[in-house]
Amino acid sequence: MTAILLSEVGLRDGLQSINRVMPLAAKQAWIAAEAAAGVREIEVGSFVPASLLPQMADTAALVAFAKGIPGLTVVALVPNARGAERAAAAGVDAISMPFSMSETHSLKNVRKDHAGVLVEIAATARIAADAGVHFAVGLATAFGCTYEGHVPEDRVVRLAEAARAAGAKEFSLSDTTGYADPAQVRRLVRRVHEGVGAALTTLHLHNTRGLGLANVVAGLEEGITTFDASLGGLGGCPFAPGASGNIVTEDLAFMLHAMGYDTGIDLDALLAVRAIIAAALPGEPLYGFTPDAGLPLGLRERLA
Amino acid sequence: MTAILLSEVGLRDGLQSINRVMPLAAKQAWIAAEAAAGVREIEVGSFVPASLLPQMADTAALVAFAKGIPGLTVVALVPNARGAERAAAAGVDAISMPFSMSETHSLKNVRKDHAGVLVEIAATARIAADAGVHFAVGLATAFGCTYEGHVPEDRVVRLAEAARAAGAKEFSLSDTTGYADPAQVRRLVRRVHEGVGAALTTLHLHNTRGLGLANVVAGLEEGITTFDASLGGLGGCPFAPGASGNIVTEDLAFMLHAMGYDTGIDLDALLAVRAIIAAALPGEPLYGFTPDAGLPLGLRERLA
Repeated sequence: MTAILLSEVGLRDGLQSINRVMPLAAKQAWIAAEAAAGVREIEVGSFVPASLLPQMADTAALVAFAKGIPGLTVVALVPNARGAERAAAAGVDAISMPFSMSETHSLKNVRKDHAGVLVEIAATARIAADAGVHFAVGLATAFGCTYEGHVPEDRVVRLAEAARAAGAKEFSLSDTTGYADPAQVRRLVRRVHEGVGAALTTLHLHNTRGLGLANVVAGLEEGITTFDASLGGLGGCPFAPGASGNIVTEDLAFMLHAMGYDTGIDLDALLAVRAIIAAALPGEPLYGFTPDAGLPLGLRERLA
Repeated sequence: MTAILLSEVGLRDGLQSINRVMPLAAKQAWIAAEAAAGVREIEVGSFVPASLLPQMADTAALVAFAKGIPGLTVVALVPNARGAERAAAAGVDAISMPFSMSETHSLKNVRKDHAGVLVEIAATARIAADAGVHFAVGLATAFGCTYEGHVPEDRVVRLAEAARAAGAKEFSLSDTTGYADPAQVRRLVRRVHEGVGAALTTLHLHNTRGLGLANVVAGLEEGITTFDASLGGLGGCPFAPGASGNIVTEDLAFMLHAMGYDTGIDLDALLAVRAIIAAALPGEPLYGFTPDAGLPLGLRERLA
């Protein structure tokens, strides 16, 4: 069985768009339960100024907690080298940094143009190397941008190569805006693989237009081995009420399991984690179909 | 561009699980608007006893109305040869008949075992040939059954071959229960193609576990050229509240369009049809992500 890594990003990408701060104890219970269900990598938060995102103020405490769970890879997002220093000091296993392919989005998101982000990538690569920490760059808005619209594939390849020259050793392609379709995923993964080779490992997909899992299938067929997802699709999508944000961990795990991939995840245990979020954030909409429908009768027999 | 046929089944598969009868005029407006948006095939209802399904009592009137729309293929579902006679008399272009791969489901659905359904298929093939009407058999519960669980692929191939021997000339594979995953779709489509060749043209998918469009991608890659879908995912799923029934026409049309397939559909016009259903069935949940999120900025430029 091919092993596929499901990387939980709900504590960062999900919670960052929810104003109510989830209590630290609930976040810890979420991390512990999801790791116990077999999820092997969790992005626990981001090192951004607490004044900007109060929800992320406890990221260092979450890193310390998650580091106590054997076998779990603990990731944090950082917007710049200053954040990378804080992440490394907190003891993360891996740092992820967004590099938006849309310069307009980059300026709004991290207040830096492409050249400015490349400077941060170079500095972060050094910080990560010194700390013995893994470092991945997320090529954000790679499939299109709500400000700029179409993002040319040539630009994505060129900027990925520039980031690699600046010291980035691993990449994800991020459909930040939920614009991607399966044909585009196949094309762009192929192009970026030509550019930076096996350093492209990951797809970060949103389900804004319902195509998230269809895009996973396209990625699987192009050799992608890591997929980000958010438990309960937490976070929704501020500009499209009713449309979920990240692809839903539960549905992704069911699909991978049914397809015969090895994720290491116990589906029943994973589905039970939802109750922790529901209790900590009452009234917050949770997405996903498999949690409501349950697992198919005879699934085990079919896979035998 | 490869042409893909999107076949609207909401008026049959969607409405059949809604107790409130949609007024005839609203159904006609739905058919007219969706055909005007470029949808080229619509299953307008089923010829079952009106006492069993009052929602379907106006199917003959809908066939007569839809036949007045140039270029539209008008389909009706029939449970048996008696229904096929009514459908042919009403003037349909095509008849579809379910043949459930789970004998338990078949007995509950049409009160016939496999041998009994094959008799109806043979009789319907003659009726269709005499009337010059197209006839397709839907291999229902082909991916698993909520009563029987696992449905062996060998059985699906064998029963498809038996139906062909009885006179069926076209087939769809139906994931009646929303059990299918993309790997299973690829395998089973390949197996049935080996059994009955190009006569397998269609996938009928449900989105019960959120994998509907992912399964479409698998079908496209195996040469499937027709996909059933329901506007607004109408009908939901009685055993799984919140889980939609058929795959959503709007999301499917967006995905196919973005992937560069020719569907003949005007997406903006299609999205506008939703308002007709919302007005006729106030409070009825409508599914789909693209209608809320809208089309991506720059989509046209990307496809140019």
